[in-house]
Amino acid sequence: MPRLKLTLEYDGTRFVGWQAQPQGPSIQSVLESALERLLGERVPVESAGRTDAGVHAEGQVACFDSPRELPMKAYTMGLNGILPPDVAVVAAVEVPESFDPRRWSRGKRYRYRVSNRRTRSPLRRTTHWEIFAPLDVEAMRRAAVHLVGRHDYSAFRAADCQAKHAVREIRSLTVEGTSGDAVSIVVEGTAFLKHMVRNLAGTLVEVGKGRRPEAWVAEVLASKERKRAGPTAPPQGLVLEEVFYGDGPPARTAGRTADAEEDEG
Amino acid sequence: MPRLKLTLEYDGTRFVGWQAQPQGPSIQSVLESALERLLGERVPVESAGRTDAGVHAEGQVACFDSPRELPMKAYTMGLNGILPPDVAVVAAVEVPESFDPRRWSRGKRYRYRVSNRRTRSPLRRTTHWEIFAPLDVEAMRRAAVHLVGRHDYSAFRAADCQAKHAVREIRSLTVEGTSGDAVSIVVEGTAFLKHMVRNLAGTLVEVGKGRRPEAWVAEVLASKERKRAGPTAPPQGLVLEEVFYGDGPPARTAGRTADAEEDEG
Repeated sequence: MPRLKLTLEYDGTRFVGWQAQPQGPSIQSVLESALERLLGERVPVESAGRTDAGVHAEGQVACFDSPRELPMKAYTMGLNGILPPDVAVVAAVEVPESFDPRRWSRGKRYRYRVSNRRTRSPLRRTTHWEIFAPLDVEAMRRAAVHLVGRHDYSAFRAADCQAKHAVREIRSLTVEGTSGDAVSIVVEGTAFLKHMVRNLAGTLVEVGKGRRPEAWVAEVLASKERKRAGPTAPPQGLVLEEVFYGDGPPARTAGRTADAEEDEG
Repeated sequence: MPRLKLTLEYDGTRFVGWQAQPQGPSIQSVLESALERLLGERVPVESAGRTDAGVHAEGQVACFDSPRELPMKAYTMGLNGILPPDVAVVAAVEVPESFDPRRWSRGKRYRYRVSNRRTRSPLRRTTHWEIFAPLDVEAMRRAAVHLVGRHDYSAFRAADCQAKHAVREIRSLTVEGTSGDAVSIVVEGTAFLKHMVRNLAGTLVEVGKGRRPEAWVAEVLASKERKRAGPTAPPQGLVLEEVFYGDGPPARTAGRTADAEEDEG
């Protein structure tokens, strides 16, 4: 029974998120239905992590055991012919039986996009957070430095986050002034808490608007209190760009495996 | 009665195009309805040119005479509060009574976006032409050089194009390999024939796919026969980025005013 790893791109606009839920279509349910049509039976699918309603992915990872021996093309071209227009398989590879898309993950990279001009943008409405007041990108960049490293990110987790602890490692956090009137916040880390990237973005935007000084970001982090941070940025600006893997699970040292096991991002 | 020039951005996906038509919503009808609500009466709106069903704009220009004296904010913030999410006013300025968005135009810039990877892309499906075979961007770039200048573009006009003649001037035509797996064709010219940019894109893609040599593009242009050129590229890849204006209408020399008067692009 071959084990397959799929890399998925999706436009999260009309979905309730990754996870199957009774109140509307999810990426998981749409993928499981397409696999059922391809394979002739229902197989459960695991992902590298959840994404919220309205959040997009260019490189979500999903994994399942196939009951059939099919050419690899069946899992790309074949599935893409069944999946709806807003979900697609970008790549498919066979992985070892023990591959676990969450536990084997070495990290993830997210991008959060902000549109920053005086009027709203129809062409960015499902992919950007639209902020009309001018942002100080340099101040955001300097503030972001305080958030990099291995820290307790309790101040940036959702109230209903299920993770046992909030220690995570952010390897890099950059703020790019992409095209004159747009800003991208790119975060790479071992694993993420629920709403963590959106809370980091909401906090950096407070600095960008000039409402808070750069050093405030360090105070928020140190406080470990969610109520001290900025608002949760809206979902449509967020895209899961990539999930990183090695040849096996990461070594269980310094709590790093725990990061991925506890990933809620 | 102040005359207003609006710069519009729109996501053309659900529209029948710029022009009001019985079979579905148009940008023009949506804008005229919003203006009716703002102004209390129906006023006719003129544009710098039509865009087809599914074609987008970042800088379409629309013009009307306002029967009311309102602060300029009413035409940006005010209208944006009435317009649907996929249409917005980016800028509004008062212009002279004689301003004509078509005749006064000095030129336009369009961008045509191609996604070029082996699988379809949910996040690009309404903004790119998806081509799965690898494109030779350098060959497209060299072929594009043959299309720049003042020529009779009959080979690139739609069968039902209404323009009296097909002589136009393309000032620049560049092919950008934007992000590894995407290509942008950027065309700037005095004025355009119906489907001209989409036919230029379809022709350059034939060269990019290796189906035709670069010199073939010059032969197609010289032939003035539509049937010799490549297929019409689909509408969703096209965006009208900007319409250029000076302080008055362009001088009537060398037929250049005629270009704008005859614009069908």
